[in-house]
Amino acid sequence: MTEPVVFTIDVLPAGEGSADLAATVRRAEPGVPTLRVTDLGAARGDGIFETLGVVGGHPQSVEAHLARLANSASLLDLPAPNLDQWRAAIRIAAGALPSDVQCGLKLVLTRGVEGSGTPTAWIVASIAASDFTERRTGIRVVTLDRGYPSDVAARAPWLLAGAKTLSYAVNMAAQREAVRRGADDAIFISSDGFVMEAPTATVIARTGDAFITPRTDIGILPGTAQLALFEFYRGQGFQATEQLVTAADLMGADGVWLVSSVRLAAPVVQIDGTPVAADLDMTDRMNAALLARDA
Amino acid sequence: MTEPVVFTIDVLPAGEGSADLAATVRRAEPGVPTLRVTDLGAARGDGIFETLGVVGGHPQSVEAHLARLANSASLLDLPAPNLDQWRAAIRIAAGALPSDVQCGLKLVLTRGVEGSGTPTAWIVASIAASDFTERRTGIRVVTLDRGYPSDVAARAPWLLAGAKTLSYAVNMAAQREAVRRGADDAIFISSDGFVMEAPTATVIARTGDAFITPRTDIGILPGTAQLALFEFYRGQGFQATEQLVTAADLMGADGVWLVSSVRLAAPVVQIDGTPVAADLDMTDRMNAALLARDA
Repeated sequence: MTEPVVFTIDVLPAGEGSADLAATVRRAEPGVPTLRVTDLGAARGDGIFETLGVVGGHPQSVEAHLARLANSASLLDLPAPNLDQWRAAIRIAAGALPSDVQCGLKLVLTRGVEGSGTPTAWIVASIAASDFTERRTGIRVVTLDRGYPSDVAARAPWLLAGAKTLSYAVNMAAQREAVRRGADDAIFISSDGFVMEAPTATVIARTGDAFITPRTDIGILPGTAQLALFEFYRGQGFQATEQLVTAADLMGADGVWLVSSVRLAAPVVQIDGTPVAADLDMTDRMNAALLARDA
Repeated sequence: MTEPVVFTIDVLPAGEGSADLAATVRRAEPGVPTLRVTDLGAARGDGIFETLGVVGGHPQSVEAHLARLANSASLLDLPAPNLDQWRAAIRIAAGALPSDVQCGLKLVLTRGVEGSGTPTAWIVASIAASDFTERRTGIRVVTLDRGYPSDVAARAPWLLAGAKTLSYAVNMAAQREAVRRGADDAIFISSDGFVMEAPTATVIARTGDAFITPRTDIGILPGTAQLALFEFYRGQGFQATEQLVTAADLMGADGVWLVSSVRLAAPVVQIDGTPVAADLDMTDRMNAALLARDA
């Protein structure tokens, strides 16, 4: 396969069983459209998603992704996802992927066709389009104002901070702005000066034996790869803490990474044009741990 | 017709002519999906849209909508829309609508299927689902923090304030929050206290013979119906000004409206639970002017 494979899912309500969950998941014909333009996912970006890495045919951090999907659904007042159905669909979609290359699964749940009251769901299974040389060579980032204060999630939940929605136009625009500035990616900073997250990744920094990542209560996503890495760090005897992080903390760190489900840990080598320390040995260990995830 | 009719458009680059523009616009089979889930419009809310009113078979404020579409495209670094092609498509789609009821056209332009480099475009033509009794009975609104300061557009253009993007999950969540609070709609307030816009409408207020609407440089859309109304006001000898507006200005006004392309002018009768003056006579005149637009 080279083209992504699409699986459509007949959404079952949460808690509703089925004798044959696999029958609710159908592989779409290659290249044939499956989505109506009146679906609120397409018309309003009104839906949620998760992207899982698949390594050796094995989908990674499935339960962490499903927990986050359920949390996003709750923040958007979407019906709770049927997690047994998603587990079955993930298994089926991962089975369509080769086991000798790194792959990804994108799970999507939308509010459905306007007026239907029925959510729409699908999975896109694809081979990673990159060879991820940046895991060795590092990435240059710029910091960009996210416009929101760090108390946005508590103060204004309708802004959906902390939900992984299909409304990612701003995330994509931030990545274009980074490229425009000669960098590879961006890190969002809250309007009151705290490091939030990258448009499609979580920020981790190391100082000595301590690893830190921004607290999720400032309106950011809990990172699934970050969660796995925090387990790894603690298992190796390091400290690992969620806290408030400033750009100055990153500039002075012994290592900074953007971590995500498919690219995994990419070491940051430059922030806003200034070189920062890169910890390539630790990067290798982190990526080995992420690639070896068995759950 | 009762179901929306979808027209797919083979996007021509701006300035590229065609002997037969009509041949680039195709009516889709009813109920048959036309969109691939790997389209960035569906996957990332990475696209733009416009909604036009259609009255008596006549699409309204076409040039104002196309100007805004082109501005949104520029803010999102999308290829400039081919306006001649859009004019032809609008004409064709409007021709599918009945002339004895109020209707709407939704124009959508996305970044296209990931990796294709070719934008995707369509129009949904539909009969308005409402009889718009709220034009007479009024609407209750709540004010909601938009999280952004009023200088967001100048300070952080990557946040796409002022672009009409498909990433409307926050707009939809704000309307749900309004309903949760016992209201019908919301008005966004900037983090520094200025009235911005409603999730799908522009705010206008009247004090004496003066009408005001928020300045668009605070990161909001120019309202196409608001533009038409400002012409109407001036033609009637009223003042009409874009300026900074506060919630207190609305509470003390002689009339407040949310105006949009299909619902048109809806008089606000309550803000955050407090009754406000409604100007039903002026509302009627405004809606008559909007319904009579011939361009």
